[in-house]
Amino acid sequence: MATTLKQAYQPLNEQTVVELAKKLELFTDYQHIEVHEIGDGNLNLVFRLIDSVTGKSIIVKQALPYAKVVGESWPLTLDRARIESHSLKKSAEFAPEHVPEVYYTDHHLALTVMEDLSSHVILRKGLIEGIQYPHLAHHIGTFIAKSLFYTSDLYLHPYEKKELVQTFINPELCKITEDLVFTDPFYDIDTNDFPSELQDAVSELWTDTELKKRAAALKYKFLTRAEALLHGDLHTGSIFVTETTTKIIDPEFAYYGPQGFDIAHFFANIALNYAAHSFHISDPLKRSDYQGYLLGVIKDTWETFSDQYRELWKKEGVEAATKLPGFEEEILSGLFTDMIGFAGCEVIRRTIGLAHVEDLESIGDFNGQIELKKRVLKLGSDWIKKAESIKNIDEFITYIRSV
Amino acid sequence: MATTLKQAYQPLNEQTVVELAKKLELFTDYQHIEVHEIGDGNLNLVFRLIDSVTGKSIIVKQALPYAKVVGESWPLTLDRARIESHSLKKSAEFAPEHVPEVYYTDHHLALTVMEDLSSHVILRKGLIEGIQYPHLAHHIGTFIAKSLFYTSDLYLHPYEKKELVQTFINPELCKITEDLVFTDPFYDIDTNDFPSELQDAVSELWTDTELKKRAAALKYKFLTRAEALLHGDLHTGSIFVTETTTKIIDPEFAYYGPQGFDIAHFFANIALNYAAHSFHISDPLKRSDYQGYLLGVIKDTWETFSDQYRELWKKEGVEAATKLPGFEEEILSGLFTDMIGFAGCEVIRRTIGLAHVEDLESIGDFNGQIELKKRVLKLGSDWIKKAESIKNIDEFITYIRSV
Repeated sequence: MATTLKQAYQPLNEQTVVELAKKLELFTDYQHIEVHEIGDGNLNLVFRLIDSVTGKSIIVKQALPYAKVVGESWPLTLDRARIESHSLKKSAEFAPEHVPEVYYTDHHLALTVMEDLSSHVILRKGLIEGIQYPHLAHHIGTFIAKSLFYTSDLYLHPYEKKELVQTFINPELCKITEDLVFTDPFYDIDTNDFPSELQDAVSELWTDTELKKRAAALKYKFLTRAEALLHGDLHTGSIFVTETTTKIIDPEFAYYGPQGFDIAHFFANIALNYAAHSFHISDPLKRSDYQGYLLGVIKDTWETFSDQYRELWKKEGVEAATKLPGFEEEILSGLFTDMIGFAGCEVIRRTIGLAHVEDLESIGDFNGQIELKKRVLKLGSDWIKKAESIKNIDEFITYIRSV
Repeated sequence: MATTLKQAYQPLNEQTVVELAKKLELFTDYQHIEVHEIGDGNLNLVFRLIDSVTGKSIIVKQALPYAKVVGESWPLTLDRARIESHSLKKSAEFAPEHVPEVYYTDHHLALTVMEDLSSHVILRKGLIEGIQYPHLAHHIGTFIAKSLFYTSDLYLHPYEKKELVQTFINPELCKITEDLVFTDPFYDIDTNDFPSELQDAVSELWTDTELKKRAAALKYKFLTRAEALLHGDLHTGSIFVTETTTKIIDPEFAYYGPQGFDIAHFFANIALNYAAHSFHISDPLKRSDYQGYLLGVIKDTWETFSDQYRELWKKEGVEAATKLPGFEEEILSGLFTDMIGFAGCEVIRRTIGLAHVEDLESIGDFNGQIELKKRVLKLGSDWIKKAESIKNIDEFITYIRSV
């Protein structure tokens, strides 16, 4: 299975993907192989191959050399397939239960053959439907604690860490985040996308110099702080769940960045779902119950994360600094403050930037949606500007409640 | 001159360096070429080739695959020759007047052919002799302002910056700094080197948890903050001077790191020279005059640096953040605080770590030297622990006066 194909890049189709499977000996018998193209075709081709007799199935994911967003098409590096497969393999070293297993990669063809997770649903869909996942917080908190710690200078030999930094230098995908998350939403730039009813609220952001300086400082951290290997795009659409399992997928934005970034994106997207449920669930009791669950996810994720991070630090810290009493609290405290600001940028850009979230967009009551989005913008602005004064996860959550 | 030699590495000698010069056509005539090996042979071979008739001369510097320090020999990557020549060429793009010109490089042979600066002296020697260099502060301040700004995310396209980060990943040389500057001096580790008379003062450092946490935080910044391309070892032994010119040499420690690092090392080594002059100059008037000059160098360097940095930011800033009023002061303020801590680490490690400075070691009065070193350790500890509360360059200088 480790044979390199050494083919020039070309997109696979339902015929060639079976030829590939044969060449790689992914199945023992090809009489009953069914092929389904299950991707959305915007960024990647995703084929599911299943043996209809044995039930054995695999996923073949191939990056496309362009991205389609809102009808536009622009070139996008195939190198992201290399990044994604490296990231999945790195995660599998310490958290194999939370990533799809990678069976084969080919960087020339920009493809990854991996475990089929069809039994899972995208977390964002499940949350919009009001489903509770009892293990989600524990799984995400664990995954992030391990990802950050095991890829940091606190655990790795500095040579190994620098080699990983080099492997994960990811200019094109990082630039998408640099522009769409940290810059564009704070300026009158045409990637932004919002209805005219939001213009006043948006203009308020664009003229708020203090807010823009804080967002600029967060961008500077994103650009310069190579602290740990991040997923880079850990929203609720990058998480596959069942009632008992949680899988983190699509790490094509992976790179070495500031530790607070991933957990911020998870929390921001939970907060957006919380906000949307003011409309999605009309029964006040049921709504309050579900929104309580969501806030519980944030609190439990943070507590699992920080407890496990401290535990790893204590038991597996290698860097001399990990033996200094209390130094872990300094690192966690900086991470927490960064997290709040990053979460603020994410809720703002998901409301008025290029890429919106279904949670908010699916609200049928247009006026209600507009009012809610104004409150979300206020939430984001508060988080960004008041990050330093928010001292613990309960205070952070209080801001979500006020939406 | 751009022919690649493609030879396997072997150290040059006085014969082969002339063959190399012929192959590269460095001179037109070889009848009167004299060769002098002028390096100390510890880390590098340095040959000076001069045509005794025309006076034309060049330097051929070749890295050795080991380092000799205090009698020990350990392997050291030849890749540092690649780093050094890349750094010199990068600096020549924005400050050609402050680096030796590079004529030719060969990464296989780990060699660089460059401008001969034999008319210059090493700044450390000149300062020990009590010589004043009227342009030094302006030159160093200018060089650092340009180096930091032109290699940062504030000026470069993010793709270009990330490519430079990749070029300058420098694990082995960085590890020397990580160990010898940030860790070893704060622990009982056998690389340290100090007389038993200093044991009590050193033990005080080793049991000061707060100091060790602050040093650990500085090391964490050194490990994680890819803000700008640094020289990485900008002490007064890496600077060549005449009365009118200043050349920064030996950037083999170059890497992307925290902006305050280089200026800190320059200031720390000026401070060590200041301290040593309490003994080197016995005439109180002359001493006070020279020490005043040294403090003036620090103040003028900082002011030149910060003024020029602001000017570059205003005139040549590309990143959107450079248009936000006052954001440059946030960046400068963070840089200033980092600088103080880094300077503290440098004065401590130069006193009790592996690599000492001639300024202090050449003090003949042993008891006086011990007392002075105790005060230097106190200076370093104060800078590290009180960095946040030192608000401007005058307050920083006041600490030096108290030595």
